[in-house]
Amino acid sequence: MRPTPAPIDETLAPKLQHKIDRKTKPLGALGRLEAVALQLGLIQNRLDPSAHHPYALVFAADHGLTRAHPVSAYPREVTWQMVLNFLAGGAAINVFCRTFGIPLKVVDAGVDHLFTPHPDLIDAKLAFGSNDAVTAPALGLELAHRAVATGAEIVNRLPDSLDVLILGEMGIGNTATATLLLHCFTGLPLATLVGRGTGLDDAGVARKRAVLETALARGGISSDPWQILAEYGGLEIAQMAGAMLAASERRVAVLVDGFIATAAAVTALAITPEIRPYLIFTHCSNEQGHRAVLDHLGVSPLLDLDLRLGEGTGAALAYPLVQAAAAFLNEMASFESAGVADRA
Amino acid sequence: MRPTPAPIDETLAPKLQHKIDRKTKPLGALGRLEAVALQLGLIQNRLDPSAHHPYALVFAADHGLTRAHPVSAYPREVTWQMVLNFLAGGAAINVFCRTFGIPLKVVDAGVDHLFTPHPDLIDAKLAFGSNDAVTAPALGLELAHRAVATGAEIVNRLPDSLDVLILGEMGIGNTATATLLLHCFTGLPLATLVGRGTGLDDAGVARKRAVLETALARGGISSDPWQILAEYGGLEIAQMAGAMLAASERRVAVLVDGFIATAAAVTALAITPEIRPYLIFTHCSNEQGHRAVLDHLGVSPLLDLDLRLGEGTGAALAYPLVQAAAAFLNEMASFESAGVADRA
Repeated sequence: MRPTPAPIDETLAPKLQHKIDRKTKPLGALGRLEAVALQLGLIQNRLDPSAHHPYALVFAADHGLTRAHPVSAYPREVTWQMVLNFLAGGAAINVFCRTFGIPLKVVDAGVDHLFTPHPDLIDAKLAFGSNDAVTAPALGLELAHRAVATGAEIVNRLPDSLDVLILGEMGIGNTATATLLLHCFTGLPLATLVGRGTGLDDAGVARKRAVLETALARGGISSDPWQILAEYGGLEIAQMAGAMLAASERRVAVLVDGFIATAAAVTALAITPEIRPYLIFTHCSNEQGHRAVLDHLGVSPLLDLDLRLGEGTGAALAYPLVQAAAAFLNEMASFESAGVADRA
Repeated sequence: MRPTPAPIDETLAPKLQHKIDRKTKPLGALGRLEAVALQLGLIQNRLDPSAHHPYALVFAADHGLTRAHPVSAYPREVTWQMVLNFLAGGAAINVFCRTFGIPLKVVDAGVDHLFTPHPDLIDAKLAFGSNDAVTAPALGLELAHRAVATGAEIVNRLPDSLDVLILGEMGIGNTATATLLLHCFTGLPLATLVGRGTGLDDAGVARKRAVLETALARGGISSDPWQILAEYGGLEIAQMAGAMLAASERRVAVLVDGFIATAAAVTALAITPEIRPYLIFTHCSNEQGHRAVLDHLGVSPLLDLDLRLGEGTGAALAYPLVQAAAAFLNEMASFESAGVADRA
C-alpha cells in the first residue's frame, strides 16, 4: 500500500491567513487556534473548513512481548476486558466521546480473545496478537502490509461527511511496542523513550528496557519502514498508521493522541511523509519520551494535561478546540462587517 | 460587602480521590482532569458534581487612563463597538459559547456609550468609565464597593441550576488597569507585568509603563484591598471580582480567564481569601506577566494556547475540559463494575 495523500494547495494559506487576520480581534490573539484553523483550511482545501463530523476509532490488540516478558504493570487479559468496557460504554474514551458528541467504534485489530458480535465492534482481527519480538518478527512483512491496508479500509468505510478523525488504542504492552518503533524511526535513545507505561516502577522500567534491547539486538534496524513495522509493530499500531494514511487521501484531519498514537503517526510518516499536513498533534503525554518525540518532530501539541491513558482520550479532549478553530474562522465577524475600528 | 464563601468540607477529598482511583484507568492517568474533578466535588460538596449548566458573563467598561495617555493600540470607542459585536453574536466569545452550548450575557459595567436595550445586555452601568488614575482615584471607595456589590447581584440573579461560571471582559485600556492591580496585590514588579495588551510595540510598552508609574506615585499602595481597588480599579474588573465572590457563596466553580480576569481574581482573593477553592485557572495568556502572576499564585492553568484576547475566550475553551472532568467522575466504570483486572 502506497497511498496518495490529497495534495495541499499552499496558495490557499495567505487567503486563509487574511481571513483570520480580519476577524474582530487583535492580530494573532487566538494563538494556537489560528494555526489549527489554517491547517484545517489547507486540509479541506477551502476557506470555510468544517469540524462537525468527527469519528473516533479505538484499535485494540495484544502484544507478543507480554507473553514472556515483564513489560507492563497490568496482565494481558486487561486488553479484552477493556474492549468489553468500551463496548459497555464505561471507559474514559466513551465518556469523553459522549460528552462531545463523537461517534465511537472499537476495532478488534488483534486481541487475544474471541468477542461476540456487537454493533460498536469492528472485527478486523488479523491474529490473536503479535509475536514476541524478542524471539521472532512481531508481525512479519505480509501481516504488516495487511494490517496497514485493513486500517485504511476501515477509514474508507466511514461516512462521507467525516471531517475529523480521532484515533485511540488499547493493548497491554503497547508502550513497549511503540518504544521500539519510535526508537527505530526517530533514532532517539531507548533511555529517553522507555517509560512507565501504565505504572511500572524504576526496576520495572529497567526490565522493560532490557527486554527491548534484546529484541533490537535480534531484529536490527532496517532502512525500510515496512521492515521495521514487520519486526516490531503491533496490530493496532499498524492499523492506526493505515487509518491515518487513508484519512489523508480523504482530506480528513487526524487528531493524534499520545505516545502510542504518535508511534503510529511516525510509522505512517515513514511510509508516506506527505501525510504530515493532515496530522494535528493533540497532547503531550506524561509517558516519558513523548515530549522528546514531539520535539523531534518539531511539533507543539495543543494540550499538556499530564494524561497517560491512551484510548484516544487526549485527542477527544482536544476535539472541542478543533471545533472552536473552525467555528471562529467561519462565524466570527470581521472588522468591516462588525463596524469595529481597527488599531490606530 | 464581605461575602461568606460556602465552606469546603475537606473530609470529602479522600472519598472523591478513592472514587477517582477506582475508575478503569491506571492511577492518576487522567492527570490534570483528576484534580479538576476533585475540585468540582469539593466546590459542590458532593461525590457526583455536575458541570452541565454553565453561564458566561462578559463585563465591559472604559478606563480613564485611555482619555489622556497612550496605554492601548486601539481607540477607546472599540469598547462600545465590541459590545455591539457581542450583542450581534460576532465576537470570538460568542462563537465559542455557541459551539459549547454556553448561554452568554454582556454586562455594561461602565462603558462610555449609551446602549439601546437588548435582551442579551445587562445594564449595570455605574459610570461612563473610570477616572484617570494618573490624576485621581480611578473609582473612589464608594464606587469600588458599589461595583463589587453589583457584580455579585448579577450572579445572584442567574439560574439556580448554575454550576460553572465563565467570566470575561472587554475594555480598551484594561491591561493597564489590571497591571496596576496585580502590581499592588502581588508585589510583582511593573517591569514583569507591563505587556503589549492588544498589540503595543516596545516603545508603546515603555510609554504605558511610564503612565502606570505616574499613577502609582500618586495613589500609593495601601494595605487595604478596597483602597487599592478604589485607586486603580476598573468597573468591569471590580464587577468581575464581585461576581467571583457571589459564585463562591453559591458553590459555583469560576473559570478564570486571562490577565485581566486574573486581576479580578487577585482582587477578590485579597478581599476574601476563602474563595480560592472556587477558582479554576483556565489558561496562560500570551500577555507578558500572566505566567508570573500564575506562578505567584502557585497555580498551573489548564490551557496554554498563546491566547491574548480576553472576553472570557480562554475560560470558554476550557469549559469542555471541566465538563469532561465531571463526566468521567460520574460516568466511568470502576474496575469492580466493569470486571477489569487491576494491576498485578
